[in-house]
Amino acid sequence: MLLLRQVIGETLRARRLGQQRTLREVSTAARVSLGYLSEIERGQKEASSELLASICGALGAPLSDVLSDARDTVRMDESAGIPVLDDIDGPQAALRGRVVAAA
Amino acid sequence: MLLLRQVIGETLRARRLGQQRTLREVSTAARVSLGYLSEIERGQKEASSELLASICGALGAPLSDVLSDARDTVRMDESAGIPVLDDIDGPQAALRGRVVAAA
Repeated sequence: MLLLRQVIGETLRARRLGQQRTLREVSTAARVSLGYLSEIERGQKEASSELLASICGALGAPLSDVLSDARDTVRMDESAGIPVLDDIDGPQAALRGRVVAAA
Repeated sequence: MLLLRQVIGETLRARRLGQQRTLREVSTAARVSLGYLSEIERGQKEASSELLASICGALGAPLSDVLSDARDTVRMDESAGIPVLDDIDGPQAALRGRVVAAA
């Protein structure tokens, strides 16, 4: 099952590392404990919407950009593993499945 | 402050209403109480990632589509109310702010 907290965590971690910042720096800026931020990044804890907004602020990342990254990651995972929902038994289903997986 | 749970809630509610389904129908399909689903739709409760996946499944909506909708809503809100972050004091800031708001 695709879990949003894992995808969001990966996204936040990638952005922090892309800025070459430490957990300590970002957790201080976001006013969250280092351990909690680490758990969020690893998808082990759900961030409340308020905390997510605070972490986005600390990273200088609009929430929409974080959602874009998360959407792209989820879409890739869905394409790789989840069959097309409509007309699943139609004659083109197998072909379409391959096209989606290759997209 | 833009809160993800409110945007996700609006998105889920819009999809349910677009399918002309009741809270009772979707809550039963998602195995969540009617009252809890209602609170999630109104942005009053955070849905766990597992519950969000279950509600998406009940709506036949890929998580990526829900995230796309949420991203679009957040982006519109950001464009309307949040100034451009880079070069905020530059000579083109006021002009660019209007362009973004009108986009």
